[in-house]
Amino acid sequence: MTELFQARTVREARELLAAHLGPEAGAEEASLPEALGRRLARAVAAVDEVPGFARSTVDGFAVRAKDTFGASESMPAYLDLTGEVLMGRESVGQLAPGQAWLIPTGGMLPTGADAVVMVEHTEELDRRTVGVNSPVASGDNVVRAGEDMMPGALLLPRGHLLRPQDLGLLAAAGVTEVFVARRARVGIISSGDEVVEPTRQPGPGQVRDVNSYVLYGQALAAGARPELLGIVGDNFELLLTTLRRALDQCDLVLISGGSSVGVRDVAAEALNTLGAPGVLFHGISIKPGKPTVGAVVNGKPVFGLPGHPVSAAVVFELFVTPLLKYWSYPDRLPEFPVRARLLRNMRSAAGREDFIRVKLAVADGEITAEPILGKSGLISTLVRADGLAYIPAEKEGVEAGELIGVKLF
Amino acid sequence: MTELFQARTVREARELLAAHLGPEAGAEEASLPEALGRRLARAVAAVDEVPGFARSTVDGFAVRAKDTFGASESMPAYLDLTGEVLMGRESVGQLAPGQAWLIPTGGMLPTGADAVVMVEHTEELDRRTVGVNSPVASGDNVVRAGEDMMPGALLLPRGHLLRPQDLGLLAAAGVTEVFVARRARVGIISSGDEVVEPTRQPGPGQVRDVNSYVLYGQALAAGARPELLGIVGDNFELLLTTLRRALDQCDLVLISGGSSVGVRDVAAEALNTLGAPGVLFHGISIKPGKPTVGAVVNGKPVFGLPGHPVSAAVVFELFVTPLLKYWSYPDRLPEFPVRARLLRNMRSAAGREDFIRVKLAVADGEITAEPILGKSGLISTLVRADGLAYIPAEKEGVEAGELIGVKLF
Repeated sequence: MTELFQARTVREARELLAAHLGPEAGAEEASLPEALGRRLARAVAAVDEVPGFARSTVDGFAVRAKDTFGASESMPAYLDLTGEVLMGRESVGQLAPGQAWLIPTGGMLPTGADAVVMVEHTEELDRRTVGVNSPVASGDNVVRAGEDMMPGALLLPRGHLLRPQDLGLLAAAGVTEVFVARRARVGIISSGDEVVEPTRQPGPGQVRDVNSYVLYGQALAAGARPELLGIVGDNFELLLTTLRRALDQCDLVLISGGSSVGVRDVAAEALNTLGAPGVLFHGISIKPGKPTVGAVVNGKPVFGLPGHPVSAAVVFELFVTPLLKYWSYPDRLPEFPVRARLLRNMRSAAGREDFIRVKLAVADGEITAEPILGKSGLISTLVRADGLAYIPAEKEGVEAGELIGVKLF
Repeated sequence: MTELFQARTVREARELLAAHLGPEAGAEEASLPEALGRRLARAVAAVDEVPGFARSTVDGFAVRAKDTFGASESMPAYLDLTGEVLMGRESVGQLAPGQAWLIPTGGMLPTGADAVVMVEHTEELDRRTVGVNSPVASGDNVVRAGEDMMPGALLLPRGHLLRPQDLGLLAAAGVTEVFVARRARVGIISSGDEVVEPTRQPGPGQVRDVNSYVLYGQALAAGARPELLGIVGDNFELLLTTLRRALDQCDLVLISGGSSVGVRDVAAEALNTLGAPGVLFHGISIKPGKPTVGAVVNGKPVFGLPGHPVSAAVVFELFVTPLLKYWSYPDRLPEFPVRARLLRNMRSAAGREDFIRVKLAVADGEITAEPILGKSGLISTLVRADGLAYIPAEKEGVEAGELIGVKLF
């Protein structure tokens, strides 16, 4: 059965998944602290001007800019000191021509003033006169009313992933509750007759479950709510029951293991039984990670991940992380943005995208990448790595000294 | 008072803080899911060999490698098919010369076998004979016993920040509870008579609290447990009481605002009152972020951050994030690892490190960085940015077309 499926490129596999994906998990209201790292389910617009008044950005003197034209160290402009702005208070009164008011950083510009002279460029001659040594233009050292946001302006679009600064913008706008996507529940299943819980001492032929914990960590790091659903033996009925339960309670399901051809086919058959469209691809032209099954069952993505932990982790990075963050595969920025100089030749087959574990260092102000060699079944190789380097499909390898794109862990 | 302090470079300021820092927050036991993103408080060593037996990495036939020497498509090596390895079971019996056993991926190699031939390189002639078309060397397609870890090997050192793959390594080693540093409690205070809660409509001269929410998000993203301690007016006694309470209940304290010179001095005086060594520096040679106070009070770091939200966020990235992640300032990898081509000339003063908000895009397979201009009091500028670009102190600017290091948000 496997042989009937053609291995897909990363782009093709993503397009297939995106085309069959159901709507994202429902939305819920969240306070700003709860909303970090989640997608806005509704766009947010500004109601008020922010700031609501012109503010000084420095400690100094509010002035009419034209009163300072031509001022210099040798020919200061002398202004009458007739007022003082207090923090958090309305600046009542009017600054008349030839006058200056003392103003602190963040203070409200008095009516009549259109600029602030930094205290460093002034000299207080006496309590009633200030000398300005350097001219200012209208608007200098001032944030205008509405300069940060204007009423009605789109602050953040629907789908925006909220970062710390976005929380600040929302607070500035007076928005303290937002509608965000629920954290996706990710069901994690390990399969294989050889796999035992990490708390158990493996017998001959047995190994402890590694993938569940790597995938759990990756899902958590991507902002999801992972749930460990245990280990299932290589049994069709058991697999079917477990997958059905996982699909009932989760938004996305991962089943890893079943590395051997027969077992993968069983998982694929189970997925086709559970709902439409079922399996979308069976095999991706990547290394490691080729024996991956991608499915959508009633709108929910399900991945049959390879049993080798490095392979499963790479496929998660490429296919699951973007879904959990964006519920789509956005294409705005490169996924491997760090440029590093490869320290050793690496071969790669043309027509296959390769992902190399690398250890990074700095030499002569440049980042170097030392490949971590070793089988994809060895989790220790992924632990020794700082990131994944990428070799595109059209290359047959990368030579030592070439620059290569890296995604940091 | 400010003028008595010399502005420090980033490196000097970090060294001062590191030299006076107390021990990290205590350790506690955590399950693997709870341990993600936290530092190991004790090193972890392996107890057993992992895997505990030689495993096949492919579906195929376990063989003695020497029986396949010289095999080819035209001259296959014919071997007697005398056994089958079952997943999760001990392979009982002995593979004799001239024999092959069917073995699935992950299966235990039988005694006598030292390699596996991939099924793709074989041909089953009948139920008792398999033809091998391609030779294997000893160890081919096999993970040796102990190849992932050996008893006694250091798996992860003390202080290691646990990533998803590290949880997998620990699970493989049978370690399901680890001692990790407690999440640092970060107390966040906003100061200034002009600052009001985001839920309130600001009056004339007032602005909503932005910094508390940006800093909350940054602390959470760095793995800490932030606590919003509210807004304090520009009043020495109130400031002192609030800081004392914050230092009692938190491991690190941030007080932002008080942008004007006088207020900063008051905060500094309060910190010197509360414990030794108190204020370590007052001003850093960076833009934005210069008016920063760094202190250590009885071993706990306290930062007086600028009131401008962009400045506060930049100082947090440079000084607080590393402390929360590592409780130190590690120096292994560059902090601005992404190389982008700057799209416009940017000036910078020599002797000052500059951090530029940039919007990134991809053009001709290269990352470009468009500076987001605008005052550091405007949170919207930080929202429009994808990252921070860095101009080192020795440069007086960067020209359009130059490559520049960027840290992504």
